[in-house]
Amino acid sequence: MVTNVVVIGGGTGVFTALTGLRDYPYNLSAIVNMADDGGSTGVLREEFGTLPAGDIRRALIALSDSNKKVLSELFNYRFEESSSLHGHSMGNLLLTALEKITGDFGSAVDEAVEILNVKGQVIPVTLTPTKLCANLTNGEVVEGETNIDIPKHDGTIQIKDVFLQPKVTANPKAIEAIRNADVIVLGPGDVFTSILPNLMVEGIVDAIKNTSAKLIYNVNIMTKFGETNGFKASHFVSKMEEQIGHDRINFVTVNTEKPEGEIVERYKEEKVEFVENDMDGDPRLVTGDFLRDGMFLRHDSGKLASALSSIID
Amino acid sequence: MVTNVVVIGGGTGVFTALTGLRDYPYNLSAIVNMADDGGSTGVLREEFGTLPAGDIRRALIALSDSNKKVLSELFNYRFEESSSLHGHSMGNLLLTALEKITGDFGSAVDEAVEILNVKGQVIPVTLTPTKLCANLTNGEVVEGETNIDIPKHDGTIQIKDVFLQPKVTANPKAIEAIRNADVIVLGPGDVFTSILPNLMVEGIVDAIKNTSAKLIYNVNIMTKFGETNGFKASHFVSKMEEQIGHDRINFVTVNTEKPEGEIVERYKEEKVEFVENDMDGDPRLVTGDFLRDGMFLRHDSGKLASALSSIID
Repeated sequence: MVTNVVVIGGGTGVFTALTGLRDYPYNLSAIVNMADDGGSTGVLREEFGTLPAGDIRRALIALSDSNKKVLSELFNYRFEESSSLHGHSMGNLLLTALEKITGDFGSAVDEAVEILNVKGQVIPVTLTPTKLCANLTNGEVVEGETNIDIPKHDGTIQIKDVFLQPKVTANPKAIEAIRNADVIVLGPGDVFTSILPNLMVEGIVDAIKNTSAKLIYNVNIMTKFGETNGFKASHFVSKMEEQIGHDRINFVTVNTEKPEGEIVERYKEEKVEFVENDMDGDPRLVTGDFLRDGMFLRHDSGKLASALSSIID
Repeated sequence: MVTNVVVIGGGTGVFTALTGLRDYPYNLSAIVNMADDGGSTGVLREEFGTLPAGDIRRALIALSDSNKKVLSELFNYRFEESSSLHGHSMGNLLLTALEKITGDFGSAVDEAVEILNVKGQVIPVTLTPTKLCANLTNGEVVEGETNIDIPKHDGTIQIKDVFLQPKVTANPKAIEAIRNADVIVLGPGDVFTSILPNLMVEGIVDAIKNTSAKLIYNVNIMTKFGETNGFKASHFVSKMEEQIGHDRINFVTVNTEKPEGEIVERYKEEKVEFVENDMDGDPRLVTGDFLRDGMFLRHDSGKLASALSSIID
């Protein structure tokens, strides 16, 4: 029997997890949040009334198995910011056109799955337009994913919780994928703007609670200013547990390889800090070196997938 | 032996000819002019320094044999004129992105041929940027295909001839296709803005003269204001012969089905008239009903292809 692995997330995190896991013999599904309203995606969303394409595009590219490699390059191609094409990514334009041609975003994604010969499933968490909002600790409400993502509030004010307005129900395909899952992988990804916007969609948490699938949560490598300032590993886990219950997470992966050198200074200027492991002794904890080489302090897709597979198998 | 048929043209004419001929067992190549600088194509050309994609896009769609029908719909999809995407066609955007990814327009077209599973060849007549210019009978020079296409000059001033600035040489693939041709089909299409811009490219006329391929010229059904006002069939033929010599055209197809009704009045308002057959007795003449039903007085692709095939076989 092939193991059904469902990755839930958004942003670059879902791309990282999928890129690593696709090298293993799993049946992969990606459930992707639909709260994105920034950049190219935001402009298209506002102007064409289409659903947000950005995170779906990344998941599609991660799982593309087309022998026409140029197709995934096309989906990833971005026109210059300064041009009249406003820095749009070609994939976003293609998904927008496909939504207009097919009449709905679900069918657009299905067509893109066909075109890119996607190995696995890419599932928008909901097919109903909605907006991500955040309650801050000072009582203020922030509307829109971008306004939460790029905080106007300073470091002393924190996000208390997030919610979707209007409330929306889950894409039936997302529920079905969770129901059939052997393993559910949450993250890595921004807590409030990538992962929780999935869990806020009506039906998702219930589906997660009602399956016996192993649940693995990947704690981020770095904090994010305005979202998770000062968070240690256990704080990330708590934020998930507030949604899905305190006995649902089976495994927690935490990177313990501390980055060094110039790159740390650069991140410090952006008030981004290394997430410390404060969970020793927790039976769910799986630690390791998951750090990527290079310019960004992110998960290495190969190292993460290797750790996940040893949990899964 | 499969018959090699090369269609030379641009605009909607090349689409019509290819759409009809693809139902016959010929090995089809389309040589397409690179003078287009209007609309979506013109904007992309100016802004990204890319070669004109519009006519190539039409030829690609005409010959697409993809089982993914949505791909050719995507290539044909046009964003709203009023949007920030300025009425761009998706195919033009895709060809622009492909040119940026691959580094040159020839490779971009080759990739599009792959993606769309094109049955046959689509060949830009040149890979060097150039501009179409026209000498008018009053001595004035008009620069740019669009300025010729949508005339600012009135009906009394005619186009004397057109030229390319700078002079450019042919795409070697175009020369090769002509050299291997059994049949060359010129048009239908605008004389000065679709067909002659191909013949102006250095190497094309010589290649046509040096092959023993049958040469068929399809006379347009209607005149075009500012280009061919008052032209009868023989005037169209003369314009071609000025370029390729007086003994090179083997067959001339002329539509003799006169359109009737409201549609004729509408065209008359735009100073567009039915092209009369004044070539009776010319041994090259092939007449017939080539008229399309519907809103536009254009060639019917099926009727035209049927006439061409009876000449070819």
